[in-house]
Amino acid sequence: MTPSSTRWPVAVLGATGAVGQAFIRLLEGHPWFDLVEVAASERSAGKSYQEAAKWLEGVLPASVAGLTVKLCTPEQVTAPIVFSALDSGVAGDVEAAFARAGRLVLSNAKNYRMADDVPLVIPEVNGDHLALLAHQRQVRGWTGAIVTNANCATTVIAAALAPLHQAFGVTKVFATTMQAVSGAGYPGVASLDILGNVIPYIGDEEPKIETELVKLLGTFDGTRIKHADIITSAHANRVPVEHGHTVCLSVAFERKPTPEQALDVLRNWTGHAAVKGLPSAPEPALIIRDENDRPQPRRDVDRGNGMATTIGRVRADHLFDLRLVAMSHNVVRGAAGGSILNAELLAASGQLAGIGAP
Amino acid sequence: MTPSSTRWPVAVLGATGAVGQAFIRLLEGHPWFDLVEVAASERSAGKSYQEAAKWLEGVLPASVAGLTVKLCTPEQVTAPIVFSALDSGVAGDVEAAFARAGRLVLSNAKNYRMADDVPLVIPEVNGDHLALLAHQRQVRGWTGAIVTNANCATTVIAAALAPLHQAFGVTKVFATTMQAVSGAGYPGVASLDILGNVIPYIGDEEPKIETELVKLLGTFDGTRIKHADIITSAHANRVPVEHGHTVCLSVAFERKPTPEQALDVLRNWTGHAAVKGLPSAPEPALIIRDENDRPQPRRDVDRGNGMATTIGRVRADHLFDLRLVAMSHNVVRGAAGGSILNAELLAASGQLAGIGAP
Amino acid sequence: MTPSSTRWPVAVLGATGAVGQAFIRLLEGHPWFDLVEVAASERSAGKSYQEAAKWLEGVLPASVAGLTVKLCTPEQVTAPIVFSALDSGVAGDVEAAFARAGRLVLSNAKNYRMADDVPLVIPEVNGDHLALLAHQRQVRGWTGAIVTNANCATTVIAAALAPLHQAFGVTKVFATTMQAVSGAGYPGVASLDILGNVIPYIGDEEPKIETELVKLLGTFDGTRIKHADIITSAHANRVPVEHGHTVCLSVAFERKPTPEQALDVLRNWTGHAAVKGLPSAPEPALIIRDENDRPQPRRDVDRGNGMATTIGRVRADHLFDLRLVAMSHNVVRGAAGGSILNAELLAASGQLAGIGAP
Amino acid sequence: MTPSSTRWPVAVLGATGAVGQAFIRLLEGHPWFDLVEVAASERSAGKSYQEAAKWLEGVLPASVAGLTVKLCTPEQVTAPIVFSALDSGVAGDVEAAFARAGRLVLSNAKNYRMADDVPLVIPEVNGDHLALLAHQRQVRGWTGAIVTNANCATTVIAAALAPLHQAFGVTKVFATTMQAVSGAGYPGVASLDILGNVIPYIGDEEPKIETELVKLLGTFDGTRIKHADIITSAHANRVPVEHGHTVCLSVAFERKPTPEQALDVLRNWTGHAAVKGLPSAPEPALIIRDENDRPQPRRDVDRGNGMATTIGRVRADHLFDLRLVAMSHNVVRGAAGGSILNAELLAASGQLAGIGAP
Repeated sequence: MTPSSTRWPVAVLGATGAVGQAFIRLLEGHPWFDLVEVAASERSAGKSYQEAAKWLEGVLPASVAGLTVKLCTPEQVTAPIVFSALDSGVAGDVEAAFARAGRLVLSNAKNYRMADDVPLVIPEVNGDHLALLAHQRQVRGWTGAIVTNANCATTVIAAALAPLHQAFGVTKVFATTMQAVSGAGYPGVASLDILGNVIPYIGDEEPKIETELVKLLGTFDGTRIKHADIITSAHANRVPVEHGHTVCLSVAFERKPTPEQALDVLRNWTGHAAVKGLPSAPEPALIIRDENDRPQPRRDVDRGNGMATTIGRVRADHLFDLRLVAMSHNVVRGAAGGSILNAELLAASGQLAGIGAP
Repeated sequence: MTPSSTRWPVAVLGATGAVGQAFIRLLEGHPWFDLVEVAASERSAGKSYQEAAKWLEGVLPASVAGLTVKLCTPEQVTAPIVFSALDSGVAGDVEAAFARAGRLVLSNAKNYRMADDVPLVIPEVNGDHLALLAHQRQVRGWTGAIVTNANCATTVIAAALAPLHQAFGVTKVFATTMQAVSGAGYPGVASLDILGNVIPYIGDEEPKIETELVKLLGTFDGTRIKHADIITSAHANRVPVEHGHTVCLSVAFERKPTPEQALDVLRNWTGHAAVKGLPSAPEPALIIRDENDRPQPRRDVDRGNGMATTIGRVRADHLFDLRLVAMSHNVVRGAAGGSILNAELLAASGQLAGIGAP
Repeated sequence: MTPSSTRWPVAVLGATGAVGQAFIRLLEGHPWFDLVEVAASERSAGKSYQEAAKWLEGVLPASVAGLTVKLCTPEQVTAPIVFSALDSGVAGDVEAAFARAGRLVLSNAKNYRMADDVPLVIPEVNGDHLALLAHQRQVRGWTGAIVTNANCATTVIAAALAPLHQAFGVTKVFATTMQAVSGAGYPGVASLDILGNVIPYIGDEEPKIETELVKLLGTFDGTRIKHADIITSAHANRVPVEHGHTVCLSVAFERKPTPEQALDVLRNWTGHAAVKGLPSAPEPALIIRDENDRPQPRRDVDRGNGMATTIGRVRADHLFDLRLVAMSHNVVRGAAGGSILNAELLAASGQLAGIGAP
Repeated sequence: MTPSSTRWPVAVLGATGAVGQAFIRLLEGHPWFDLVEVAASERSAGKSYQEAAKWLEGVLPASVAGLTVKLCTPEQVTAPIVFSALDSGVAGDVEAAFARAGRLVLSNAKNYRMADDVPLVIPEVNGDHLALLAHQRQVRGWTGAIVTNANCATTVIAAALAPLHQAFGVTKVFATTMQAVSGAGYPGVASLDILGNVIPYIGDEEPKIETELVKLLGTFDGTRIKHADIITSAHANRVPVEHGHTVCLSVAFERKPTPEQALDVLRNWTGHAAVKGLPSAPEPALIIRDENDRPQPRRDVDRGNGMATTIGRVRADHLFDLRLVAMSHNVVRGAAGGSILNAELLAASGQLAGIGAP
């Protein structure tokens, strides 16, 4: 399963923010990847990482504390694999520069997600879409590549619906999200806004859910991604939860399953075969709870080291066919951990040949 | 507008619980009603109210602190108008006993809500349904009567959809609720269950929403309520909010309105005419917010003294016709305040003749 | 009690922030003061207030929504009475400029609090210190004046200890605060920092408590303030509470009182006589609770329209003499409301003669 | 370091509550102890554990889910080592019955903590007090024994002060606690009481802190515990935190240290030598943070698998000598984990000879 006997040096762009810190936590002790460089904006560049970042969770790894923060340019950052936690405001140009310079960029930004030649991947769901990279290189003339992962709320939905779509053909989705504050980064949501409150709006979140889902559940025909024929209507809400986006779903299908049939499919789903055994792959990817009051973000968010998706309350729907609730860790499964799993899948499947070459 | 120059003595059953306390707060200084009796279970009966109740919010009115708690029987409690905050486990028999004894019972329990001869009323929405009481007395042989108000989550939805239903004919509703902890009473939800968490389940809540809504939006034909032809699919969630149930709605109509048309109807809606000017009637009943991040429970819950419903994010829906968000105070608008407004409407419209007579 | 038949035009500096908004809320419908101008930084100046401010709580008064935000200069802002919610970074120069231009500045910033010629006043506690203004004008050559109110945590402590100091002579104080997030302004404390958490540090708060208290409880000898001979040791903490700073106190006295004697003094305290009947003066100023679990910020913070201080758990101490808990609203009593009460006291006592004259 | 090649069968009394569940989580995979029995009240007895308990955190170990819940009697429960999470209302008689029947009882209840012949032990702090068991057996005539661990808030204080007491002689302590809701068990604190709130009272907590601390920091003279000569004044508060009690301390010493000297002692403290290397012993026991805003419960509570105590803000005090802040996990370090570490120390030091014999 290990891609080779050699380890890969990797870098994190946007390393001081909340997602950047999650990359650092998850890469600590990683069996294949060595975090050798951290990069951020001009304000942080030149400082030690410890000095530049306000570390938010757990213990800052000693091996990273002393790294000097670099600027986000392919001249300064030399690692062949680059995890990007950059804001969309700067991600467009920076990520392209790295791909042009021969690096594999694993991006959390929205900029390239919907581009025809850029894979938008949740490995278990559509790991085969990574084959789109050949097309990307041809089109863009890059020696490197950009692979994106989905918006964190979309990730919950796609992970929960992929098995059902494969089995019964999803056609319509109502999705109401209750999203954790960590999804807004740091400092992000002001405590005066969210303590004891619900904010029924997250900027740009509903369109992301509605557009990304059809690409994630689409099919790769050897050349391009054919989007799934699904119409989604999303309601995005912020709730006073630290980590974990919870989503209530009502779903219509081409072939209506009973709740029992759906549960059977969800319980037995294994996802894209090549993902099995990767270092960050949760086993199982989906956890199905029988209790009627689960999933709950605070209690279920860390399952599978934050990479599992927990599903519950699968039941009949009066208007569509099924209702269910799904939840996963927005910073791990929905951001940093998802990018790392994408990189692992590329490494394990030998698609990193030539990456990092000048 | 005042029903007469005389004031009505009233009692509260289940007076020590969270809704019972809300009745006491809202009746303090009421222009028409004098709270003269409080009643509760055997555990509290015989004690002073101050001794029996753990007062939760604001200041316990001095006039109530010293009242001796009575048992919930029409022998002990003599007031002609009785506000019931009883649990459904005991409400069935107790409320019937009071109605049989000639009292007007304004109930918050679910027991009689769906009975054919019992009005389920939100005054602005379907105040005309109170005329069903003539039928109730005939059927039951009661000299008194039972009037119910709806489940607190259903109340939010019905208040927001009534104007749209009247104008465009609602046919389908997806409703995802994010409900405050006070909806579960006291002690209710354990802090270990809800701090920083979401619980995607509230026992019996979804069926209540789905069944009560069609009666609330139904029409009274002079004899009985014809239920509205609406199919509802509900997802009920508990969130760490003190007061205020927030609901995300996707709605289909017979005659599809644009968001602008819907907003126009909502802004100009006045509701059942006889409600206007009642002591507890909010003015306006619906508050429409233009900001995309409203309503918010902590910031909007007290509008109209907790009796107004705040609506926002009225926008197009990809699957049905409209999406919107609505919120109101679950303990005031959705419980005690709703009951009091029902009683005010009955008093103002002269329907209390004979109430309290032996 | 009304200072004259005329109303005073007033302005708010720093009007868009959390304390600035509190001024606007509290001045709405004020019987003596008319809010005619709002001022803020260059970023907001020239916009309508509604456009410039993200309104945080309740309903933005319509009379203010359309005001054009001015710059914080005495040339642009012409009102004779100026409430300052400015940050300490700019308050020093700006407030002096207004005082020099003949205006009465009621400041919430720390800059002038400890200056020998500037009154630091909680009206009930040391309203007589306002007489220091004569000295201030002499020293500074200002036709206007600066009056400051205390840090919000210090305000809780001073209000609770003033009666005891007057009766028994406070000598030593241990104070541990649990402070609401609104004390940090907006956006202030990040939700990721405080949800389900305690932060045992607030920058510069402990020194403020330790130094301001002795001035507040000091005596005015006709020329200057003689600081009280009290040593204070403070521990400042931030907790996930919206409004209301709670303080645990252990106190030593010159003449040790029993808890009963202390309670007697607290219950009968009326404070500086001239405060009684002022529009914003709470009646009573101190609320003493007998229950052992009060005060609580969420339940007691709005007593006296947010201007009362609630005290409980007065009991013996093993090391010093007494322990007690005190709490008040940090934004109202501890900031905007305190400033307004200062202005009312000045107006009622005829000390505004000449204010606003060129 | 392992006590012998054999493993010990153990039982948990009061297994369905919050602390009982913590025992089960912490014993899962324990290298020395096999959890073979769970016991609870009559309401649960006879059911499977899964059926009887509402599992609160993480995943219920499969090996426990199917255990039949027994009654808390030495006839039904046969394991030689018994961890007691019983309420004080029943712990007195039940724990004595087990000790009389030859079992080692590790108790979290307050009943025997202050008894002259019962060790009250935090292993690193006063592990040598376990030698008191010889005296206990003599006095009580028991073949088994009772060992207690301290109240969860006292545990934080004792762990932080032990090194300083050993080096400089603590004489006076002001302690203000901010305690997590899990300290009250389940369902425990109602969400309506604590959301966005502080409760400045915890029943019986302040006396426990004041009395237990002097025993924990006392010295064993071969026969009995000489209590430390320390006077403590405690203020106990409940805050909306899930796990982790935070305590602000002001401390006076016989030999006043500088903050630097105190930090030096804290950093180099290793505690009772025999604890080193025990399976549940954190390494280090004390974590000293340099940042001025630590410890924080949500961010530091899991250090050392919940067994470490985090200390910060060591600084001079104006009234006593030092101020500091300490925090540890109330359910792990302060309850179940503490009991397990006590049992490990007894096992490793050969003091279990005869335990479990008839």
